[in-house]
Amino acid sequence: MEREKSLGESEEWPSIEIFDYSTDVCDIFLWDFSSSPRLDSLADIAEKHVRWINVDGPCSEELLNEIGTVFHIHPLVIHNLRNQFQRAKVEEYDGFLSVVTKMIYFTGDALTVEHTNILLGHNYVLTFGDTKGDVFESIRRRIQADARVRSMGADHLVYLLLDAIVDGYFDVLETIGGQIDDLEDSIMEQTTKQHLLQIRAIKKNLLRVNRHIWPLRNVASLMDKESSELIHPETEPYLRDVYNHIVQAIDSTETYRDLLSGLADLHFSNISYRMNEIMKVLTIISTIFIPLTFIVGVYGMNFKYMPELNQTWGYPVVWAVMVVVSIVMILFFKKKKWL
Amino acid sequence: MEREKSLGESEEWPSIEIFDYSTDVCDIFLWDFSSSPRLDSLADIAEKHVRWINVDGPCSEELLNEIGTVFHIHPLVIHNLRNQFQRAKVEEYDGFLSVVTKMIYFTGDALTVEHTNILLGHNYVLTFGDTKGDVFESIRRRIQADARVRSMGADHLVYLLLDAIVDGYFDVLETIGGQIDDLEDSIMEQTTKQHLLQIRAIKKNLLRVNRHIWPLRNVASLMDKESSELIHPETEPYLRDVYNHIVQAIDSTETYRDLLSGLADLHFSNISYRMNEIMKVLTIISTIFIPLTFIVGVYGMNFKYMPELNQTWGYPVVWAVMVVVSIVMILFFKKKKWL
Amino acid sequence: MEREKSLGESEEWPSIEIFDYSTDVCDIFLWDFSSSPRLDSLADIAEKHVRWINVDGPCSEELLNEIGTVFHIHPLVIHNLRNQFQRAKVEEYDGFLSVVTKMIYFTGDALTVEHTNILLGHNYVLTFGDTKGDVFESIRRRIQADARVRSMGADHLVYLLLDAIVDGYFDVLETIGGQIDDLEDSIMEQTTKQHLLQIRAIKKNLLRVNRHIWPLRNVASLMDKESSELIHPETEPYLRDVYNHIVQAIDSTETYRDLLSGLADLHFSNISYRMNEIMKVLTIISTIFIPLTFIVGVYGMNFKYMPELNQTWGYPVVWAVMVVVSIVMILFFKKKKWL
Amino acid sequence: MEREKSLGESEEWPSIEIFDYSTDVCDIFLWDFSSSPRLDSLADIAEKHVRWINVDGPCSEELLNEIGTVFHIHPLVIHNLRNQFQRAKVEEYDGFLSVVTKMIYFTGDALTVEHTNILLGHNYVLTFGDTKGDVFESIRRRIQADARVRSMGADHLVYLLLDAIVDGYFDVLETIGGQIDDLEDSIMEQTTKQHLLQIRAIKKNLLRVNRHIWPLRNVASLMDKESSELIHPETEPYLRDVYNHIVQAIDSTETYRDLLSGLADLHFSNISYRMNEIMKVLTIISTIFIPLTFIVGVYGMNFKYMPELNQTWGYPVVWAVMVVVSIVMILFFKKKKWL
Amino acid sequence: MEREKSLGESEEWPSIEIFDYSTDVCDIFLWDFSSSPRLDSLADIAEKHVRWINVDGPCSEELLNEIGTVFHIHPLVIHNLRNQFQRAKVEEYDGFLSVVTKMIYFTGDALTVEHTNILLGHNYVLTFGDTKGDVFESIRRRIQADARVRSMGADHLVYLLLDAIVDGYFDVLETIGGQIDDLEDSIMEQTTKQHLLQIRAIKKNLLRVNRHIWPLRNVASLMDKESSELIHPETEPYLRDVYNHIVQAIDSTETYRDLLSGLADLHFSNISYRMNEIMKVLTIISTIFIPLTFIVGVYGMNFKYMPELNQTWGYPVVWAVMVVVSIVMILFFKKKKWL
Repeated sequence: MEREKSLGESEEWPSIEIFDYSTDVCDIFLWDFSSSPRLDSLADIAEKHVRWINVDGPCSEELLNEIGTVFHIHPLVIHNLRNQFQRAKVEEYDGFLSVVTKMIYFTGDALTVEHTNILLGHNYVLTFGDTKGDVFESIRRRIQADARVRSMGADHLVYLLLDAIVDGYFDVLETIGGQIDDLEDSIMEQTTKQHLLQIRAIKKNLLRVNRHIWPLRNVASLMDKESSELIHPETEPYLRDVYNHIVQAIDSTETYRDLLSGLADLHFSNISYRMNEIMKVLTIISTIFIPLTFIVGVYGMNFKYMPELNQTWGYPVVWAVMVVVSIVMILFFKKKKWL
Repeated sequence: MEREKSLGESEEWPSIEIFDYSTDVCDIFLWDFSSSPRLDSLADIAEKHVRWINVDGPCSEELLNEIGTVFHIHPLVIHNLRNQFQRAKVEEYDGFLSVVTKMIYFTGDALTVEHTNILLGHNYVLTFGDTKGDVFESIRRRIQADARVRSMGADHLVYLLLDAIVDGYFDVLETIGGQIDDLEDSIMEQTTKQHLLQIRAIKKNLLRVNRHIWPLRNVASLMDKESSELIHPETEPYLRDVYNHIVQAIDSTETYRDLLSGLADLHFSNISYRMNEIMKVLTIISTIFIPLTFIVGVYGMNFKYMPELNQTWGYPVVWAVMVVVSIVMILFFKKKKWL
Repeated sequence: MEREKSLGESEEWPSIEIFDYSTDVCDIFLWDFSSSPRLDSLADIAEKHVRWINVDGPCSEELLNEIGTVFHIHPLVIHNLRNQFQRAKVEEYDGFLSVVTKMIYFTGDALTVEHTNILLGHNYVLTFGDTKGDVFESIRRRIQADARVRSMGADHLVYLLLDAIVDGYFDVLETIGGQIDDLEDSIMEQTTKQHLLQIRAIKKNLLRVNRHIWPLRNVASLMDKESSELIHPETEPYLRDVYNHIVQAIDSTETYRDLLSGLADLHFSNISYRMNEIMKVLTIISTIFIPLTFIVGVYGMNFKYMPELNQTWGYPVVWAVMVVVSIVMILFFKKKKWL
Repeated sequence: MEREKSLGESEEWPSIEIFDYSTDVCDIFLWDFSSSPRLDSLADIAEKHVRWINVDGPCSEELLNEIGTVFHIHPLVIHNLRNQFQRAKVEEYDGFLSVVTKMIYFTGDALTVEHTNILLGHNYVLTFGDTKGDVFESIRRRIQADARVRSMGADHLVYLLLDAIVDGYFDVLETIGGQIDDLEDSIMEQTTKQHLLQIRAIKKNLLRVNRHIWPLRNVASLMDKESSELIHPETEPYLRDVYNHIVQAIDSTETYRDLLSGLADLHFSNISYRMNEIMKVLTIISTIFIPLTFIVGVYGMNFKYMPELNQTWGYPVVWAVMVVVSIVMILFFKKKKWL
Repeated sequence: MEREKSLGESEEWPSIEIFDYSTDVCDIFLWDFSSSPRLDSLADIAEKHVRWINVDGPCSEELLNEIGTVFHIHPLVIHNLRNQFQRAKVEEYDGFLSVVTKMIYFTGDALTVEHTNILLGHNYVLTFGDTKGDVFESIRRRIQADARVRSMGADHLVYLLLDAIVDGYFDVLETIGGQIDDLEDSIMEQTTKQHLLQIRAIKKNLLRVNRHIWPLRNVASLMDKESSELIHPETEPYLRDVYNHIVQAIDSTETYRDLLSGLADLHFSNISYRMNEIMKVLTIISTIFIPLTFIVGVYGMNFKYMPELNQTWGYPVVWAVMVVVSIVMILFFKKKKWL
């Protein structure tokens, strides 16, 4: 159960970054809370313009409610914005569409999951993230640079955002894939007690990734022609592309789980092999020397009448017998392929 | 198979708590059986009012039948109210809707499952529980405090009740998650015969939780616009939210099952490791001393003609040979990484 | 593969028990083959009456064909009546409905599966069983005693019959649940070679039960309003109840399978533990005495010049050394937590 | 991957057996290639007659093409007739229906899969098999003997053919079930290295059977009223019966797979048990004699001053001590339940 | 995660091979970039002609964009052409249909996956591959030789291409099947530490093959009559055939996975067997010689008063006792079936 701390614990102002663009124009500015404490004008969007409002960092409940009022967003959606403990999902409401996704990336060895909300309205896109994320950096540049992108509607921007997030999944999966390969090599070299813990750690990451990607398959529901007026028909192939990537990412997690459980087998097999090797050494040493020790024991007995003891050849013959016994044993082990 | 004892074994009066509210008013009172033994007036609800009737504690069959008659509830539903051995489910009947759920919480180490029935009519909600439950306490307070909540219909109250119950699932799952983490630490420290039993106990709890949550996915059926007149369109986003939480809880149980079966692997791996360690000690001691014992056995023989025995250097040379043999063995073990 | 012997091998007359009832009347009689060898009048049912014809025991092919002709039942259904090797199923034909179920109960330790056919016509119910079953005894009594039951149609009788059969499943599942608990205790106490066989036996029973319950989910198809004229709308909630019980029984078999495979793990774990214990004893004894035996071997050598042998303190010092070695070993084992 | 050799490698004439029947008439004859080398008249079927043309043995490509032309069969179907490497399937074409099935039977210990094509036209059925199969023998007799069968259309003949083939599956499954039971007994008696290979062999057969039966579930598609004009409504219950048998056969394969994987567990458990037994013997012998050998070693030492050696009671006391040690050890093993 | 290098890294010209055919004509030529650097005329296709344009080798982005413009292909499809990291899929666009498939074949021991795009327009087919593939060689010949093939539309050509690719899958699966059989033989002969790695390598190949074949089931969507105008009804049986082959290939991968996991069991079982054998040898040798060594130790003691030592028969009697003890031991092992 991961109940991450609620968004908006802190009361400092978030950064509200605004992209206002049409085919010809592209204005970028940060909202100036000192000059305009009220957000009413946030929703005044010029005709044929698209506005992307990216709210980064912790938000107070009041601020979120105000944004909700300005854009006529359902109170439940606003309420859930503050709750990072939500499942990824795609939901349609009257007049807007809510996409809850998770940005996933590795920070060192730890998997970081960042809750990201995307709200799509008729001519605006609202995004809410926890940190000053740079996954969207490339999108910022493309909007500024590419008139074709700017000529497309707000729904195309949602596609770009989803695409950037889903691309991030592949980086994570590639890292996990590399970890699995490394672990395989390490297990083959020298199996240790820690390997199963490492397999477990990777598996936990994989389960976590899977849990966040899996529900995103629902973006497929956006592609249904009748379902939403907010998605233009020309955006559908793009969403289908994102959908294909999501399915591919899910496939990869399945493959990795298979490979991981195979690693556990490899680990157990190696433990068994080592046990075999240990037993083999013990058995070889024991079975060679136990009979020999018996033989020398025989001639260590103190019976008065042991004819062999008085023969000159007794001692060398015993040695000869012992050498023969050893050789027979060694041949037996060779035959058994233990040597 | 858990056939819990039937509700209503005892014949004492249950507590019938009534919330009668509209946007402006909120009356709370307990039904007074001494002054009004007949329940007919229970269904006299003022226009635009919503009435929540919470029946707590054991009910006699006659009382339940009377409630059924007063609210025109299908006899089968009334019959089933007394049967805790029911599956969670959502069912629609003529004029009312029955939601059977299970409150789940930990009482000490034991998982307690409490059967809870919610009946939604046009302007009333009936709830039947076994004990004086306080999961609904927060809802009582909200109804008294929040006019917005009171302005909404009976279906919104059902949402609040479901939400409170489902929130309880997450507490249980968090506890189970903590148990799994503790068990993992304990297994890594010192694997004992009891660990598999503990894994099994957690698994049983998980199976039980899963069995009760799984059928609740059916609340989705309430969200279908045509399906019920009792659910207003504005309640749908809220039910969808509850549905998402249920799916999330189910996801968590799946994840935990995966982690649990991984724990069993860890347990078996640790047993194997310990066996390896035991064998290693045995093998090292045996393979060092068995050849040495053989050597001293040789010179314990009583042959008349053993030239070495009469040499002054005989005894120290044997010691030297034995030291060399020991060192060779130890180097061999070092090479094998057993030391 | 269980191809049980075909019904109707024997040529003796079966018992044909007839319940002819309406709200006011309830006639019960056995068909008298001596006075009326032809069954034509069997289908003469008074208006508003329901007739339940319970055919118990082996039937000849001719008799079945005659019943088929009298009630206009499809020849294939009649043909299949004699074949116990059928799957449980719900099928609709022109003018009647065929429900094939299996009564399941324990006879001692053996699971008995009894093939039961229920045919529902407009105003009659035909049931065919193999033995003089008493699962239906309570239904007989209810028909005689309860006018409300008699006032309902033939489809309600089918509900009562199904309900009685499904209730029997829970008894079987409870028994199996008890067996699993007993086995768990027995495995924890002393794992023997037979336990896996017992797990296997329970699993076979569970597979068998599951195979017979699983297809019964199809009763859901009866609840679809358009599907059948033979089922009245007011019977639907009752059938839904039976359906819920069936799903619950299937859930239980799933849970038990999970618990059973966990038992196999427990069994393997216990074997491993015992091996560990055996190895520990061997290793402790060996590693303490092998070095000691080496030491005494040293002073058993017959070298002429072994200075220690001639010292008065030689013997006690050797003992002292051996005691020290033993104590060191024992401390080592304590540290390893083997003692 | 089983790419069996293509049908029609050889150029010899196949046997073309023709059943031409109506309610009153039943003509059976073999096609005489010497008198009528052209097959045109094969499709001249008298009104209200049904013709079953059973082509047995290898066919040349030309012959198949000619049959295809005569009966207006899609070239792809004709092409596939020669390819035994096809999946079982049910396909509808313009004016005819193609059912590809596999006859499965044991020839000694080997599972034989025989590719069988059934083509259903308006008033004819074409069957293509590889060998002079006698699975259809009973159908030949029924057509000759039973006017009721002859009065039914070509689709009923297809039912009879499918029923005969599916019945064959149960024989195979019963054999496999018997093999599993035998193997279980054999494993319990004396586990050998070969048992896992035998489990594997049975599993391969089961996989093969399953692969051929599984796609046949598609016959269900024939029962859909609108789907085909070639299937009369009165044939539907019969097809449903075949469908039920197929589902039952699939169920059985599932059950057998479960039982088989349980057998592997049994096998591993028995190996472990035997290891336990071996270790127990080793440990008992070792732990009894190693301390005794140490004791006798002590008094084999050659110290000048060992007071015990000179006592008359020394020797018997040592024996007494050794007997006591042995008894203590044996009691210890009894307590551990190793004896 | 396999992100193969992007198509079109190099800037050299690809080979553009053009088949322009109708029932009567078949022109084949390579596009001459030197004489016609612009590709406009590529789309000038004579009436009733079909043009197959096969682009082999790396393409520059500009060239692909130009082809896209000429044939009015959606920019996203053109963009994805350069991305080998795509999932196999079937997608419909306005006026054309995109099929992304993977050619799979073994190059030595390595599995090679070649990304192949097929675009179907009204009267043309565009194919993009990475290398000068010869899987299509047979199709080239058939187009030249077979007027019937030429008389069919562009959609039939797509069928031929898909069929050739899917046929390639069976070759790969047959190779993998052979590898599994070889591995089984090798494991039975002598289990080594490498076998689990080999199982793992085959499993990885199988997962890879499965991942590429699985999404191709979507070709089924082409068979739906309403779905596409580009697919003629007469092509449907052919596509259904391809679909059946794909399903068959997927079935085979499932079967192989089952067999592979059985191999891992076999491997573990063999390790256990060998351990058993080693332990048996150790136990037999130890339990025979340890008691004997004890006996000779007894008579190695130096007690003054050991009556046996002075008897003439002492020594031979001890030998006799030891022979008897050995025989008893050997008989015990015979009874245990260890010898």
